[in-house]
Amino acid sequence: MPNVVEIIPLGGIGEFGMNCTLLRFGDEMLVLDAGMGFPEESAYGVDVCIPDFEILEQYRNDITAIILTHGHEDHLGALPYVLKRINVPVYASHFTLGLAESKLDEHGLLGDVLLHRVEPRDVVTIGSFTIEFIRASHSLVDCFHLAIKTPVGTIVHTGDYKVDETPVIGEPIDLRTLRRYGQEGVLALLSDSTNATVPGRTPSERAVIPAFEEIFAEAQGRIIVAAFASSIHRLQIVFDVAQQFDRKVCVLGRSMQKNVEIADRLGYLDIHDGLLVGINETKMMPANEVVFLVTGSQAEPRAALYQMATQVYKGITIEETDTVVLSARIIPGNERGISKLIGFMYKRGANIIEEKRRLIHVSGHASQEDIRIMTEAVRPKFVVPIHGEYRMLFRHKEFVKNHLGIPEHRIVLIENGDVLELDGERAAVVDKKEAKRIFIDETGFEEIEYETVRERKKMAYEGIVTLVLTVNHESGQLETAPQIIANGVRGIDAQNGIIKSAQSAVAEAFGRASKAQLEDPTLLKEYLRLELKRFIQARTGARPVITPVLQRI
Amino acid sequence: MPNVVEIIPLGGIGEFGMNCTLLRFGDEMLVLDAGMGFPEESAYGVDVCIPDFEILEQYRNDITAIILTHGHEDHLGALPYVLKRINVPVYASHFTLGLAESKLDEHGLLGDVLLHRVEPRDVVTIGSFTIEFIRASHSLVDCFHLAIKTPVGTIVHTGDYKVDETPVIGEPIDLRTLRRYGQEGVLALLSDSTNATVPGRTPSERAVIPAFEEIFAEAQGRIIVAAFASSIHRLQIVFDVAQQFDRKVCVLGRSMQKNVEIADRLGYLDIHDGLLVGINETKMMPANEVVFLVTGSQAEPRAALYQMATQVYKGITIEETDTVVLSARIIPGNERGISKLIGFMYKRGANIIEEKRRLIHVSGHASQEDIRIMTEAVRPKFVVPIHGEYRMLFRHKEFVKNHLGIPEHRIVLIENGDVLELDGERAAVVDKKEAKRIFIDETGFEEIEYETVRERKKMAYEGIVTLVLTVNHESGQLETAPQIIANGVRGIDAQNGIIKSAQSAVAEAFGRASKAQLEDPTLLKEYLRLELKRFIQARTGARPVITPVLQRI
Repeated sequence: MPNVVEIIPLGGIGEFGMNCTLLRFGDEMLVLDAGMGFPEESAYGVDVCIPDFEILEQYRNDITAIILTHGHEDHLGALPYVLKRINVPVYASHFTLGLAESKLDEHGLLGDVLLHRVEPRDVVTIGSFTIEFIRASHSLVDCFHLAIKTPVGTIVHTGDYKVDETPVIGEPIDLRTLRRYGQEGVLALLSDSTNATVPGRTPSERAVIPAFEEIFAEAQGRIIVAAFASSIHRLQIVFDVAQQFDRKVCVLGRSMQKNVEIADRLGYLDIHDGLLVGINETKMMPANEVVFLVTGSQAEPRAALYQMATQVYKGITIEETDTVVLSARIIPGNERGISKLIGFMYKRGANIIEEKRRLIHVSGHASQEDIRIMTEAVRPKFVVPIHGEYRMLFRHKEFVKNHLGIPEHRIVLIENGDVLELDGERAAVVDKKEAKRIFIDETGFEEIEYETVRERKKMAYEGIVTLVLTVNHESGQLETAPQIIANGVRGIDAQNGIIKSAQSAVAEAFGRASKAQLEDPTLLKEYLRLELKRFIQARTGARPVITPVLQRI
Repeated sequence: MPNVVEIIPLGGIGEFGMNCTLLRFGDEMLVLDAGMGFPEESAYGVDVCIPDFEILEQYRNDITAIILTHGHEDHLGALPYVLKRINVPVYASHFTLGLAESKLDEHGLLGDVLLHRVEPRDVVTIGSFTIEFIRASHSLVDCFHLAIKTPVGTIVHTGDYKVDETPVIGEPIDLRTLRRYGQEGVLALLSDSTNATVPGRTPSERAVIPAFEEIFAEAQGRIIVAAFASSIHRLQIVFDVAQQFDRKVCVLGRSMQKNVEIADRLGYLDIHDGLLVGINETKMMPANEVVFLVTGSQAEPRAALYQMATQVYKGITIEETDTVVLSARIIPGNERGISKLIGFMYKRGANIIEEKRRLIHVSGHASQEDIRIMTEAVRPKFVVPIHGEYRMLFRHKEFVKNHLGIPEHRIVLIENGDVLELDGERAAVVDKKEAKRIFIDETGFEEIEYETVRERKKMAYEGIVTLVLTVNHESGQLETAPQIIANGVRGIDAQNGIIKSAQSAVAEAFGRASKAQLEDPTLLKEYLRLELKRFIQARTGARPVITPVLQRI
């Protein structure tokens, strides 16, 4: 028998999103979470990325299950892609599976996979692993911490969490069970670092209620609340406060409608009969009896809020008497877009309630004092910060070292692809696998090749010129003037004659080509590519991608 | 004689940057500031934009001078482009002209323009305008507010400012003179809105000294301070604290070296003899005697800090014993990049002092209580918020309305291109000019056409396919198979045979072309473009740009 466990993160370390960790003992392996990420390459047509699951092939016969901590896209979104490779049972909560089923259905996988519904405190044994699902608190409902007993020791994986004693929906975090594991002895705590730079405690989901009550009391006209569709506690608060102030709620935006439907059907939302109304009903109602609960808090151009702010969304447009509540954090990278969106709405005279001005949003992630509570409950031998950019992981380390007195050698910083080996006494990175990411086109669930994105970046930066040479296969001479097609190249347009002179320059260069070049298409194309490149740079300063094409007729 | 003045902002309203405002009385016009902006299109090879100065052509004979409030790029950067169109005298401070000269020199304009150096309290009469230059406080030195007497009334333009009674360099803001104008009567206050969302007072430039002293006292190894090269007060603090702690300073990065050189030469910086050292000297010195003052606080990949953090910059690389001080705010849009950069430096074990953790950066712009002080000093008939996105302009309006009791009709929100007419009693937008922006390629100071950037965006999003048809001019038939060249298109590669079948599909479609299409190249190209588009979309789901080319031989 081996006396080690291995922890191999495939994503979520040194980045936000793509959370996925492998846990291995002997020839058995669990996949913990399977999340997608949102890459910086969105300017190049890439909205989503996932870990490269090619690595799973080598463990194909070892993988026994996929365990999901909760249903956010950065923990669940890559599930179909894993299952397409390796069809093993999935263990997750009621609500997480509700979201998973909807996703698997989109991928045509729903009938083909085994989904195990587990409850908090359920204990499941899968080979050498015994997993207890422990109630976590987070911005989503029905989330788990995992306590995984292995022959080498117990691994606790926090998933995403904060310490919320008073969530809106369901029971609070189960610190009691975490403490029980702490007393029994925990080998390693894999712990959420998202908010490790934030001092203090993260407020309870309930903390935003007073501000919502004030806003509803003040508003004279319609109220429009933009929130993350997955913030189920927040949605419940909007429903409750609307009920309290005799307003009806109209849910708008595809993901918002989907999540409300799933959460309602599974019994997580408590929506009074008659509270929900359709868009057409709202048009007959007095303005002060309506709430719109909408997508688009990140200023996504196709989402409901942006459409209402800039034009008309299903007959609704933002007006002077509206109160707009932006009940969400700004995801880094979206600052400019959101500020612009707010500007549009101010221009229409609406009353805008921004996060930061009133307590209308709280984070779902553990701040430093939450991390203290978690770490002191679990009392792990090793702390392994996960979920976050390096900056957060290092600040997590710094906090537990300086404020909890955990010695440096018991805090382990790893990277995606690292094979972290734990033998009960010692933690060491013993190997490094390649941990790549794969770009996905969300419309067709298709992979976008790296090379494709690289080409797009190059073209986006300086444009592209295609050079077509048509050569007579008998005479070896140009059959017609070289064709030069420029796209996105500065300084070149149909009028300014540069294309014409470039054609002459290429034709002349062709005339000067050596015998070797004339005989070898590769040499000839490269020679003329460089000639054209030099010409364009000299004439315009531009340095576009140049693609030469040679056809013989 | 007319009894109105017109205010026409060309930039800086509803956006950050490109600050430029025209002030007109009769047939006389002043240009107030000429700034560049930093567009969101940086993913498409565009780093800089300027207002479209085409509009100045219609006022060609009226423009009498350009007045600069200060030397930041968003107020000064477009100066060469204005002067290339209309060569009029420029009025600015000693230091602003120092920066302007360097810029005009790069554009080869230095000998050809008239630069008037003015001092605080100088009063200059230009035709019907009498301009007093009033000392402002800001993160840069030698900045002005402008009080411009016109026959209709006095216009006060704040430029960028905060109310700093204890700047590091030079005298504090001249509130006395502003109050004098307030007592005499001010028609309109054009007022900086950058920080209008921020409650309270903006701290003095001096406020960061204690944190720097603590950091220098604690650091055992080298200290690396990253700051904006234009934050001259900040640079002075670094020099002073270095001197105090017996460290030498090595200035790294092109813009940092340039600004230190200019500020030192013009007497704005007070640098002790022997304080500055070259990079090679630092390599001989003990680590605890060195400070590097570097560019790259925004994680610009080519700047000194990024290079030191990720590889080697002039022999320097960030090490475990280094202390790195990020003494700058995060410009919106740069969050992800900066967080990554910080992660790289943590990975190298350095001690990173981030803004927000210690008071190592203060803003140069007026917060709400600064706005109160300014507005109460100037007591304008009309408040015109400028400099900022709409969100800031509206919050500025809201603040002076709700907290200073200025009635709504005396707060005028305008947009770029608006012609705001003031007749002494009434403010009204009477006309709207087209206010466009022009993209500039900074390497060659060349304009990049809108159409070019639009093409780049389209290609970046889904790639491009070029279709080359070679038709025999006698037979009207294809001379060879259509050439299809794909760049950045997902699902198409050299191996998978899609290009080959696309060629057949286009050839077949050509065979089905109507007589009209065969006779009209435009019709034929459009017909085959659509055929190819449909084919690619059906086979791959991709929707690239398709450029058809038809050559007859």
